[in-house]
Amino acid sequence: MVNPSLEKTKEIQLIKKMARRLKANDKSVIVSIGDDAAVVKGGGGKYGLYTVDMLIESVHFKKNEDYGKVGYKAMAVSVSDIAAMGGVPKYALVSVGLPRKNIDRVASGLYAGISRCAKKFDIAVIGGDTNRSPNLVIDVFMVGEVEPEKLVLRNGAKPGDHIFVSGPLGGSLRGKHLIFEPRVKEARFLVDHFKVTSMIDLSDGLAMDLNRLVSASNVGALIFENKILKASPAVSTVHALTDGEDFELLFTLSGANSLKLSQLMKKRKTIFKFYPIGRITDLFSGVKMGMASGGIQEVPARGFRHF
Amino acid sequence: MVNPSLEKTKEIQLIKKMARRLKANDKSVIVSIGDDAAVVKGGGGKYGLYTVDMLIESVHFKKNEDYGKVGYKAMAVSVSDIAAMGGVPKYALVSVGLPRKNIDRVASGLYAGISRCAKKFDIAVIGGDTNRSPNLVIDVFMVGEVEPEKLVLRNGAKPGDHIFVSGPLGGSLRGKHLIFEPRVKEARFLVDHFKVTSMIDLSDGLAMDLNRLVSASNVGALIFENKILKASPAVSTVHALTDGEDFELLFTLSGANSLKLSQLMKKRKTIFKFYPIGRITDLFSGVKMGMASGGIQEVPARGFRHF
Repeated sequence: MVNPSLEKTKEIQLIKKMARRLKANDKSVIVSIGDDAAVVKGGGGKYGLYTVDMLIESVHFKKNEDYGKVGYKAMAVSVSDIAAMGGVPKYALVSVGLPRKNIDRVASGLYAGISRCAKKFDIAVIGGDTNRSPNLVIDVFMVGEVEPEKLVLRNGAKPGDHIFVSGPLGGSLRGKHLIFEPRVKEARFLVDHFKVTSMIDLSDGLAMDLNRLVSASNVGALIFENKILKASPAVSTVHALTDGEDFELLFTLSGANSLKLSQLMKKRKTIFKFYPIGRITDLFSGVKMGMASGGIQEVPARGFRHF
Repeated sequence: MVNPSLEKTKEIQLIKKMARRLKANDKSVIVSIGDDAAVVKGGGGKYGLYTVDMLIESVHFKKNEDYGKVGYKAMAVSVSDIAAMGGVPKYALVSVGLPRKNIDRVASGLYAGISRCAKKFDIAVIGGDTNRSPNLVIDVFMVGEVEPEKLVLRNGAKPGDHIFVSGPLGGSLRGKHLIFEPRVKEARFLVDHFKVTSMIDLSDGLAMDLNRLVSASNVGALIFENKILKASPAVSTVHALTDGEDFELLFTLSGANSLKLSQLMKKRKTIFKFYPIGRITDLFSGVKMGMASGGIQEVPARGFRHF
């Protein structure tokens, strides 16, 4: 199994190339390629959210993996994208390419997993395409919606904002990446209570995704090693920052809203937990980390190593 | 290259299984799995149309095929689905799985073809997912819209209705399947002028798709061999009925509207051509064909042979 994030540099180049070629020139398009989901004006006062995620056997999951979990994950990664925009998922269409071998067992497993995620998040699966394929591939198209005033992009972080994550990080590839819980309720709690200045879901690791967020917002970030909760004691800081597929929310709030959130959590007015990990800093200054051992280190989008 | 329609029986079984499992219980869903596209209530008085089509190397197109044509086709099959509902395409999201070999050449070709189709039909490509894959796969999600009163399903054909197709049939796999023109303008002309009682696009051949239409409508059909225009003199009736991938429209009109359409064409009030091929008959009576040689023959969904 290949760590999907190893392929991300190439993917980013291809997406940029595609985006240049295909630049949408349509006034109904609020956000095109480049955020967790595309945003278009709906007719009824809400915005439509559209995202797609493709999982490929032996790239994103092992051959003979538990297909129920694969089906669940295929849906859940798109649900997580919708959550990261502040929205709720509504409809899904599922394309599947199935190898001939064990076709019934594989298909039943996948559909059971798809169904489990659909029920959990009240998503109607309204279409699909099923094909023969040399290797298993599953592609989920998710339609969501969000009130315009609750839409959160990744480009709104401001210097002084506080940075939060919604859970512990790292080690997801040991199993959690197949059974994670997309943070829809958490995201809706946030957008219902606060002006969230920016948000992204942690699909490729905190190092990569926080760099994406600060780059989109034209700011920098300073995070603190000892504030980053790790999924287990076995997870090193390097792994917590680079493993990927945590699917937690990474978001920013103004200082005043950050205080308000801390108070809500302290007074147990919410069951959700959010962990402050640092601050947004000056313009264009990248991501830095205050180390537990003292000193400050750069956190590049990839290749972060803790010396 | 495998004729994709050979795989359709299995696909239909899987889709039925999936549809049973995933039955949408959502009042905003007008049509779920089972037509050319799903239909959901939009907020602004229009219905949203959603469809997805996956193309896989060496299943739907040859290895080393012209990738520009593959990209075009991947979009065009979904555009054709939207047309068959009476709608117009608006947005597309494109997932691509790319083998490492010649990745830049393949990607540029695909995106050029995608872009060509997007420009032709004024579609904004607003998202996508690009991955490494052992074999090339491309999956297009298309979002369209239609006025509720112009929506056409495949289940509304009535006994006595006249059956039309929008062009000559057969032989598409020799090349046309990669360069066909989805019949959006033709479909919009029809729904702008008439109450179209049923419509489907010819993706799997007239024999299969007319059987789908009459089965969904609980009616039968009688078509005439000598009314079926063939794409070339080399195309036999069997091929015209079973080759697939014509992507012409197959639709039905009441007798009165059929006469009105014939007059519009005769008086050259439209540049479009539609060919009457027969009539909708009694309830539940399958598809039959009046042969040029005399006599009437059954036309099953598959396995039609002209003796």
